[in-house]
Amino acid sequence: MNFSTRDMDGARPIGVFDSGIGGLTVLREITRAMPSEDTIYLGDTARVPYGSKSKETVERYALEDARFLIRRGVKMVVVACNTASAFALEKLRLELKVPVIGVIEPGARAAARITRSKKVGVIGTEGTIKSNAYSSAIKAINPEIAAFAKACPLFVPLVEEGWLRDDVTREIASRYLEGFKKLEIDTLVLGCTHYPLLKETIAKALGTGVVLIDSASATAEEVKRTLAQAKLLNASGEEGEHRFFVTDSPERFIAVGRRFFGETLDYAELIELI
Amino acid sequence: MNFSTRDMDGARPIGVFDSGIGGLTVLREITRAMPSEDTIYLGDTARVPYGSKSKETVERYALEDARFLIRRGVKMVVVACNTASAFALEKLRLELKVPVIGVIEPGARAAARITRSKKVGVIGTEGTIKSNAYSSAIKAINPEIAAFAKACPLFVPLVEEGWLRDDVTREIASRYLEGFKKLEIDTLVLGCTHYPLLKETIAKALGTGVVLIDSASATAEEVKRTLAQAKLLNASGEEGEHRFFVTDSPERFIAVGRRFFGETLDYAELIELI
Repeated sequence: MNFSTRDMDGARPIGVFDSGIGGLTVLREITRAMPSEDTIYLGDTARVPYGSKSKETVERYALEDARFLIRRGVKMVVVACNTASAFALEKLRLELKVPVIGVIEPGARAAARITRSKKVGVIGTEGTIKSNAYSSAIKAINPEIAAFAKACPLFVPLVEEGWLRDDVTREIASRYLEGFKKLEIDTLVLGCTHYPLLKETIAKALGTGVVLIDSASATAEEVKRTLAQAKLLNASGEEGEHRFFVTDSPERFIAVGRRFFGETLDYAELIELI
Repeated sequence: MNFSTRDMDGARPIGVFDSGIGGLTVLREITRAMPSEDTIYLGDTARVPYGSKSKETVERYALEDARFLIRRGVKMVVVACNTASAFALEKLRLELKVPVIGVIEPGARAAARITRSKKVGVIGTEGTIKSNAYSSAIKAINPEIAAFAKACPLFVPLVEEGWLRDDVTREIASRYLEGFKKLEIDTLVLGCTHYPLLKETIAKALGTGVVLIDSASATAEEVKRTLAQAKLLNASGEEGEHRFFVTDSPERFIAVGRRFFGETLDYAELIELI
């Protein structure tokens, strides 16, 4: 055996954390884009949701989450949570010695690249929409783009109920998204990690001509690009291993999380953050 | 002026706390049953929801909430939160020198008194249903009563959206409550402080012959009875004053809270719990 330091680095897992279950959509896209990567996922299910909490509190929680991953030797931290991405990314980048990637910048960049009409819609939880994080990020990339934001608070509980292709969900989606039709947007950012599971229903409610930006896959692409640039991709060619940790209720995490990640999610370890 | 100590005690406000907005339904029933009482309401909106948190954490939060009310001189503490009632009542009763009333015991007692078929349904959030608090309380009163519990996680966000009498809400209610029809319950406990706003819709979904137990009004009756027994009722005959405190986002609390309490809720003070 004769590994160079570089090889050893690439073999380390990618760390992903979220306030709960939603970040599993980001993890799924990461494993699809890079099947050889090992991953460690932390869902802070005891303190979910972060959306209603102050910047200071979210920063503290995010640091605790990230340090847990760092102690397990990850080569990169992915913040698969919109609120933590909006509030804590700067702090994490200052504090951590590995690359840190959030979900908002990749989604905003993809939207700015794709829109032709320069009219972009953003949907998310109340907290994310109130934070203006996506709108600010899009404006920062191209000030000529108008971003229209709408909170869709029923989408998360609908996804957690598993009512993905359902008359009730369709009716709710068409109510939430009706206003976008008059605004003539050509691009819609799914600004919540739960929403990719409603992609089909959301697309139908909007009608044709609107491109949906899934922050999860935009983030996975950015993870891949960043690892490639840093020569940190796992070159083993073997299928990666995926480990899951939660701060509360592993049973519920597994039951609901399988809809997000798939059947291979069959074990999650309960931990206490220090 | 010549007040006896007893008169002075009766003039003190009733303290009510909840993890957020829902407890306002309990406050509303208290003010209806005892219009002369002054009240102080604390919504711990920065840390909402309590339902997903551990017993230890909820005990700590509940103690902090209660101490805030005690510092403001309340004559009684009403725990208008199902999770805190389930987890922290004992601790609060040990710690506080004023009477403490939760929402679970009054609801359970009312259900046990009313049921003829000895088959009672209970609906609530996932946390409340998982805690078995209502079922245990009902069994403790009368072991012959069978309690059937069902979590209805979409009801809270539907109420917060304000979709109270709405086709979508009706459809969701009929799905959630369908199973109760076969069980031949004659009594249903609304085991969540948000649910009284859906009373009409829930009653229609169940059909006739099922009595709905609103924990909020059962709790208000218990508050009145306890104050009367302790000779602590406010005998001024004047309309009471109501003050509101929150730990985050007073604007949202007022906007959503008005649906729960009415238009007179026009100010809430932002505080930090210590």
